[in-house]
Order: sequence, then structure tokens, then C-alpha cells
Amino acid sequence: AMDGAPPPASPTGLSAYVAVSQLLGLTLLATTGAWLGRYRGGVAWHSPLQFNAHPLCMVLGMVFLQGDALLVYRVFRHEAKRSTKALHALLHGLALLIALLGIIAVFESHRTKGISDMYSLHSWCGMATFVLYLLQWFLGCGFFLFPRASISLRGWYKPQHIFFGITLFILSITSCLLGITEMLLFKISDSYSHFVPEGILANTLGVLLVAFGLVVGYVLTREEWKRPPLAEELALSMDFKTLTEGESPGGGS
Amino acid sequence: AMDGAPPPASPTGLSAYVAVSQLLGLTLLATTGAWLGRYRGGVAWHSPLQFNAHPLCMVLGMVFLQGDALLVYRVFRHEAKRSTKALHALLHGLALLIALLGIIAVFESHRTKGISDMYSLHSWCGMATFVLYLLQWFLGCGFFLFPRASISLRGWYKPQHIFFGITLFILSITSCLLGITEMLLFKISDSYSHFVPEGILANTLGVLLVAFGLVVGYVLTREEWKRPPLAEELALSMDFKTLTEGESPGGGS
Repeated sequence: AMDGAPPPASPTGLSAYVAVSQLLGLTLLATTGAWLGRYRGGVAWHSPLQFNAHPLCMVLGMVFLQGDALLVYRVFRHEAKRSTKALHALLHGLALLIALLGIIAVFESHRTKGISDMYSLHSWCGMATFVLYLLQWFLGCGFFLFPRASISLRGWYKPQHIFFGITLFILSITSCLLGITEMLLFKISDSYSHFVPEGILANTLGVLLVAFGLVVGYVLTREEWKRPPLAEELALSMDFKTLTEGESPGGGS
Repeated sequence: AMDGAPPPASPTGLSAYVAVSQLLGLTLLATTGAWLGRYRGGVAWHSPLQFNAHPLCMVLGMVFLQGDALLVYRVFRHEAKRSTKALHALLHGLALLIALLGIIAVFESHRTKGISDMYSLHSWCGMATFVLYLLQWFLGCGFFLFPRASISLRGWYKPQHIFFGITLFILSITSCLLGITEMLLFKISDSYSHFVPEGILANTLGVLLVAFGLVVGYVLTREEWKRPPLAEELALSMDFKTLTEGESPGGGS
């Protein structure tokens, strides 16, 4: 803050939850890598292994990076709003690029092997999620960064942006679980029911994805952990909603 | 209210969203019935069709009834809190009973056909969701209905109950989508990729499940639609959280 206010304290517990989320995020990337590396021959682009780039990119982009993009307002809660916003947009943009690579990987791999596209529930959910995520990114940039809407329009759009943002994150995780199930039933349908290690490992990846979503969702929705408006934002803004949120009693209830 | 306050108005839009949710709920039950009836031979208990009771019970209990149980605080927003609570617990209890039938159906059907239990990601997610849902129901009854905890304990538990309640609803829908994918890959793995009607119908059921979750989730989380505390609750309660929620400006932002 500009005016010599007391140094801001991070709420108890928040840092621990964020640390757990990052540990889970890294663990689920490692688990995806272990599955593809140990049981599926590894990952490569121009090769029969191109398909394997799909799960890796989707978990990295649509889950890990998207989740971290949602967390920036909690983690950098006392930084200037504008730079936090830019980081939020940047991480989502990176997530979109990596997810696009993952989608190209599956379409090219299908074309090479003569497999149909877009017939499964996984593909319907996943594609809808990606397209809406791209749309949400453009809307977010347009409303909040450039060209930027009026205060009242931003105030109207912000709760929609937050609701659909969390929804798209949940749908991304759901699409991953559907993809894991499809892949297991395509590759190890005969042995899956005998509790083979690959099945257990991939199921565990599914559980880790749910756990990551749960921890991120808890951090995002916990009332006391919401980002407090900075003094200069309060002075500049006549937005009542922001005012009441900032003033509601911290822990309590 | 007891003190001649103006008659309460329902917020604009809420009734429309609730109506859409119920239309979606009935449509997804009809779609489940159509899938099982038209393509899977129908539903019966002591027969080779016993398995089909599983999807029907889970969609009815864990999605439709669970979703409606979550909505009662928005729909009956001006009824006495205690009767709304009782209805909430009753609907969840009914959902649990029907889900239990659905779980018995799949275990008995597996035993008859000599199929392993609990090896798939669907079964892991689904069983975890059911067990935690049962636990949440017992905790909710204990804290809020009987024996009932102190005001401060209830105040501490309430946000957890709400967060985990919405989480379990989302996990229930996710488990259904995993189940649909499994069933399609077991039953029509050869024709699924040719866009056969059964595949399209079951995918559509998945999309309807997501849409139901989306509309219910929107109604539940929209700030202006939260249940306002009644005058007598305000007078009785020293719970600061409830007070501030009740007083925050209605539409705005």
C-alpha cells in the first residue's frame, strides 16, 4: 500500500493449502509422466507415440496451469491488482496454448491411425470445455485488460467470469477423468479388472486430479481468503460490492 | 415474518432458473429411461437386467434428488428455517436410499455374472462419493437437526457443509459421466465411433447431466439469491456472518 498501512498478513492456513495444491499439482504431472513413460512407451511428436502428448498437455495446461491461474488472486493478495490480473491472463494464455498442442496431437494421431474424431462423451466434454475456455479468456481480456469495460459493466461481468471460470476448471478435470477411463478401456480392457499396476496407477491419477480440484476449489471459495481490495482501490472505486466484501469480518462464524 | 414486514418478493430470474433446472432434471431421467428401455432391454431387479437399475437409481438419487435437496433453501426462501432444513435432510435421505439400491444392483449383478468389483476409476469415484455423502448427511443431521451443536460450532461447520455439499454434487455428476463412458465402451465399443444412435443418446445424457449441474450450481452460488434470514432468525441469532450476508446490498455490483 502507498500510505504506510501496517504490513499485510497472510491469513492462517492459506499458505499451507496453496503449498498442498502445488505438491498435488506436481505429483499429478509426475504420475501422468510415469503412466505414459512406464506403460505407454513415452511421448514423442512425429511418431506413433504422438497420441501420448495429448494426456500430458491436457493435464499440464487445462488442470495444473489453469488451476494456478485461478490461485494468483489468493497467492498475490497484496500485490497491485493490475499486475496480478496480467499474470492471471498470462497463465491462462499459456494453458490454452499447451492445451491446443494437446488437441492437435490427438487429431493428428487419429488421422494417422484412421480413427474417427469427436464421437465420445470425453471428446464432447473436452472440446466444449476448451472452446468455452478460449471464449472466457477473450471475454476476460476484453472486459478487464484491453480495451476494458466501464466500472459498472465490469461489476456486472465479474461474478459471471468467476462462476464460469470455476465451472470450466471443474469441467477440465472431469474431461481428464473421462479420458483416463477411455484410455484404460482401449488399452488394457482385458486386464483392468484384475487390478494390474497400470490400472491402479491411472485410477490414482484420477484421484489426484480430483484432490487438486478440491484443494484449489476450497482456497478459491473460502470467504476469509478472498483478496482484500487495496487502499488505493477502495479510494478509487465506488463499487459497493467490492466495498462490502472487503469489510466483512475476517474469521468469525 | 411475524411483525407485519412487507410480503417477501422472489428475486427476478430465480424462478426461471429453478424451472429450467427441473425441466432438465426430468429430461435427464427420461433420457436415462429411454437409453435403458430402448437399447438395454429395460430395468428389472431379479433378472439379467438388474444391472440397469444401477444407472437409473444413481441418476435419480445422486443427481436429481441430491440437486433438488440443495435447491430447497433457494426455492423455499421465505419458509421457516427449521421446516426447510427438515425437507433438505429428507430429500438427501431419500437420495441416499435410492443410491443404496443402485449400488446393491451393481454388486449383485457383478456377483451373478462373475465380474470383479471396485477396479475402475468410475467405481472408485462413485463409491468415495457415496460414502462421503452418507457421512455428510450424518454430520449435517447431528450439527443442525439432532442433537444439534452450539451456535458457534454450527457457525464453524456451516461453510464446510456447504462447500462439501456442492463438491459431492459435482463428484456425483462426474461419477455418472464416467459410468456412461464405461457402459458405452463395454456394450458398443465396435459401433460407438460410427456415431450410432445409442452413442449419441448416451453422450446427450452426459451433456444433460452437466447442464443440470451448471444450472443448479449457478442458482446456489449467486450471491443475490442466497436465502435471506427471517426477522425472527436475525433477532435470535448473534451470528455475525449471517447478519452481514443478510445485509449486503441485493443486486448491485
